[in-house]
Amino acid sequence: MSAAAPPPVIVLVRPQLGENIGKAARAMLNFGLTELRLVAPRDGWPNPDAGPAASGADIVLARAEVFDTLADAVADCTTIYATTVRKRGVSKPVLTPEEAAKQVHATAGRSAYVFGPERSGLETDDVALAHTIVTVPINPEFGSLNLAQAVILLAYEWSKGIALASPPEVPLDPPAEHGEMEQLIQHFIRDLDAAGYFFPADRTEATLRTLRTALTKTGWSYNDIRMMHGIITILGRTPRPR
Amino acid sequence: MSAAAPPPVIVLVRPQLGENIGKAARAMLNFGLTELRLVAPRDGWPNPDAGPAASGADIVLARAEVFDTLADAVADCTTIYATTVRKRGVSKPVLTPEEAAKQVHATAGRSAYVFGPERSGLETDDVALAHTIVTVPINPEFGSLNLAQAVILLAYEWSKGIALASPPEVPLDPPAEHGEMEQLIQHFIRDLDAAGYFFPADRTEATLRTLRTALTKTGWSYNDIRMMHGIITILGRTPRPR
Repeated sequence: MSAAAPPPVIVLVRPQLGENIGKAARAMLNFGLTELRLVAPRDGWPNPDAGPAASGADIVLARAEVFDTLADAVADCTTIYATTVRKRGVSKPVLTPEEAAKQVHATAGRSAYVFGPERSGLETDDVALAHTIVTVPINPEFGSLNLAQAVILLAYEWSKGIALASPPEVPLDPPAEHGEMEQLIQHFIRDLDAAGYFFPADRTEATLRTLRTALTKTGWSYNDIRMMHGIITILGRTPRPR
Repeated sequence: MSAAAPPPVIVLVRPQLGENIGKAARAMLNFGLTELRLVAPRDGWPNPDAGPAASGADIVLARAEVFDTLADAVADCTTIYATTVRKRGVSKPVLTPEEAAKQVHATAGRSAYVFGPERSGLETDDVALAHTIVTVPINPEFGSLNLAQAVILLAYEWSKGIALASPPEVPLDPPAEHGEMEQLIQHFIRDLDAAGYFFPADRTEATLRTLRTALTKTGWSYNDIRMMHGIITILGRTPRPR
């Protein structure tokens, strides 16, 4: 990815329900995609059912463009990806969403992800227009991805290639220095010894090793260790009937 | 676990709408996940709205198990992932869905992906119970992932690892199931409470959370936990002069 490739446009071919167009818009915006194109939407455009389903992704709907044919909709795109569940009678390369996203990021021109109608998917003529097929690998015994889900998976994979794709850094409480842990181990040993824990004597060495191993692997921070000192002290201080 | 790590269980904490439980089941089965657990679903279980939304993923709903608490729901799990959008007041490692999936495939024990209620997400106490946080990197100006979308993204990432599943490294002394750790935490709390540790009262909740976080991250095995039970008991049994 030299200079950033433009984000892919999302093309919905003959979508049936306004609700699904809205859901697709929401899925897109979650991952930073904003360019939606509609080819011959069944119920016309705008569609009053789209807005509520977009859950605030109104900007995507407001900017959506409508075309009569898929060829018109992708006229300015250099690489066209047809999303299908099954292979059609067309012989084209088939990529996973992950592979397609990498290719989109590596292409200088504009790419289009094309999705078919909810019920039937893309027709053979639509697929023929594409350079590449994208198929989400799915449970062979239960393939039931809806339109918005297919859009979100492709948008999500694309978003991995841009900068926003990293979770916020949470300042972790880092593990303490070994000296701190050593003091805690000694505190345990001292108080356990006083309480008669190391019995019989010939098992002491093995018991000490087990204790040291368990404490060493905790990854406890300075604060955790301080808390544990307090816990040992207070547990040993107060006798309780058993 | 010889060949492959078991698939993660999906835990929905206090889900509100039956429809969303159904959609989550559908999302799961698309990517080969079948084990659904529900913690205190708002409208009880079974829920007549779940079936239609599952679009045929009835087997997942039929096998869903219901629990009163998250601790019960994950009692047999060794690694617990809390999915959250925002940072919470708990300091834990934060992974992307991709990183989490790799870790799940590399773990011998059973993992759980935990999701919060639709509106509010997981509460701090739920997150405290987890080992790791999973956050989907998302458009910072429009984060609007719904429950089923979050489920599908995590399920999808997990499914990528099935084909290339290499045998996971089995640690010599693997981490215990969560139920064992929960009993240890309760033992600590019981004895510390008897010893007057939780003072002042208004700090109790924060202290409990700190204690839970410290113990949760230890990676202790069944044997480690058994040893710690013994240590708590013997420290509390014998009064020592100070």
